[in-house]
Amino acid sequence: MSEATAQPGARMTAEIAEQPHVFGELLAHRAEIAEVATRIAERRPRFALLAARGSSDHAALYAKYLIEVLLQLPVGLVSPSTTTLYGARPDLTDVLLLSVSQSGGSPDLLEVTEAGRKAGATTVAVTNTAESPLNRAAEMSVGIRAGQEQAVAATKTYSATLLALYLLVDAVRGGNAEHARALPELARTTLDTTEQAVAEAVHRYRFADRMVTTGRGYSLATACEAALKLAETSYLSARAYSGADLLHGPVAAVDAETAVLALCSAGKGGASTREVLEAVHERGADICAIGSAAADVPAAHRIGVPDCAEELAPVLEVLPVQRLALGLALERGGDPDNPRGLKKVTRTR
Amino acid sequence: MSEATAQPGARMTAEIAEQPHVFGELLAHRAEIAEVATRIAERRPRFALLAARGSSDHAALYAKYLIEVLLQLPVGLVSPSTTTLYGARPDLTDVLLLSVSQSGGSPDLLEVTEAGRKAGATTVAVTNTAESPLNRAAEMSVGIRAGQEQAVAATKTYSATLLALYLLVDAVRGGNAEHARALPELARTTLDTTEQAVAEAVHRYRFADRMVTTGRGYSLATACEAALKLAETSYLSARAYSGADLLHGPVAAVDAETAVLALCSAGKGGASTREVLEAVHERGADICAIGSAAADVPAAHRIGVPDCAEELAPVLEVLPVQRLALGLALERGGDPDNPRGLKKVTRTR
Repeated sequence: MSEATAQPGARMTAEIAEQPHVFGELLAHRAEIAEVATRIAERRPRFALLAARGSSDHAALYAKYLIEVLLQLPVGLVSPSTTTLYGARPDLTDVLLLSVSQSGGSPDLLEVTEAGRKAGATTVAVTNTAESPLNRAAEMSVGIRAGQEQAVAATKTYSATLLALYLLVDAVRGGNAEHARALPELARTTLDTTEQAVAEAVHRYRFADRMVTTGRGYSLATACEAALKLAETSYLSARAYSGADLLHGPVAAVDAETAVLALCSAGKGGASTREVLEAVHERGADICAIGSAAADVPAAHRIGVPDCAEELAPVLEVLPVQRLALGLALERGGDPDNPRGLKKVTRTR
Repeated sequence: MSEATAQPGARMTAEIAEQPHVFGELLAHRAEIAEVATRIAERRPRFALLAARGSSDHAALYAKYLIEVLLQLPVGLVSPSTTTLYGARPDLTDVLLLSVSQSGGSPDLLEVTEAGRKAGATTVAVTNTAESPLNRAAEMSVGIRAGQEQAVAATKTYSATLLALYLLVDAVRGGNAEHARALPELARTTLDTTEQAVAEAVHRYRFADRMVTTGRGYSLATACEAALKLAETSYLSARAYSGADLLHGPVAAVDAETAVLALCSAGKGGASTREVLEAVHERGADICAIGSAAADVPAAHRIGVPDCAEELAPVLEVLPVQRLALGLALERGGDPDNPRGLKKVTRTR
């Protein structure tokens, strides 16, 4: 799959640019997702569980907020090892289990999904591979329609998973995806208008060694994905904290040597992040604010993103984050298409 | 509360040493916890939610594994912001909500607990402060009986919270705390027998800049707590990953410059961590293995811990971790009793 002759980062670059088109494809097939949503709504689930690994785990975190706020259901993120290592088999009647995996090939998620279905859960696979083992194990499937992803670092499959989960949750509550329709166009604008600010951030953080990423509410997912993307492509020591958790201890490790990547969208999560950043700013940290409310926080560098419904901000704000990870990897002499020690599909139990 | 004249780390040192005694106190009052457990069992909860922040959030993660494996219930960790920022008010009939906070004073946990109780949840506060607002908000309370904690970095309140949660879960399933009775003695042995190995680790990691902590199953909580403790006392850039997640991307950032603190207990979690460490070892990382199965993994340095039931290992293995954080902080010229920028009680919403 990897060709040493390819231009470093060529695949990741191309796949980042595809995202407006991918969002359009997904929206064009919304009716299929709405059908799954109707079947879910008929079951009247009382509790939701989300199973995922890696980047998909951050998409699951996003879905946790969506389901708690928009569907008013309590949600848990599955620790696969309680099923795979310790053999737990709880009764899952009235439970909606969403298994999120780009490849649909993770053995642990497969085992969690099979066990969940036997235990009475309504099981839904959210994958980019229609005929995967995970799709066969689950009762229903949602395809994220991102097309084949060749770069090892997930970009378009991540954002498409977010949008697919949004469309699913929105349809379960009887929505018509009103706020999502502008996303292909907004994504195009985001890619165009952030290019310069991202290039400047690449220069600013070329020699950064420690990075902390932070966000609250829906955007916490973006902070987690940013930390992972930076760690796996640029080998940075990056760590994500929710705004609230950052103040509960880790802020001690934040100083003038620390670059803080802060997700600041308009809305309640962004407003709450502002207080956190004031504390972080006082400690001399270098803040790079990304999002539609980036102008409203103390920051050394800002990457503005177009405004949209708060619950959809993560779909847009991750675009400059991906470009930043790509740019830093290239600037530091790496090849983000082939990070050392990584394979596209990781098999864990 | 802080006195600049005190010997640096004197409080943290004393509080670490108190833990065998604290465990004994808690066991002596097991009957009170068992009464709460009986009332919980009568409600026949079908789901559990855990709300916590900071170190207590790691204790909650430990309880998630306990409840999933020993009580066979699905569990979710609460994202307080969906309640406090976004106003979510899900129906929590049949839900057990455990709110874990050493001080019992966190405004966000208070709001989550009050909202949960109104929404029909069985609410239980697990605190070190019997008359806290959180105790008043919850229907029932479990005291962790650790005595006042003066150091800003939580040590004895963390381990006592773990043990209180274990005793509660064990009693809900009708257990008699059989495996826990030896803990005061085992903790004493752990403190005595690990002293030398911890001192050597302090020298070895004196100049470490990046640390990754890892564990699986019950011990994932210890890995998370270790990363937080190192970040807040020694200002290290420390990041915790579950063994499985580490292989899904972040392993790319692990190299010969990285110190990996690995929790390796006898049992299923430890056995599964072994495979992960083989991959990490191949990448040249410097592994410090801590736990009862530390001898069985590839490691540059080992801190052995006495054997005990796997589900109780986190109560013991955190002791040398605390000492390591303390020792590194002192060796690097810090005062872990008064880390820069931290207060004992953090108020977030």
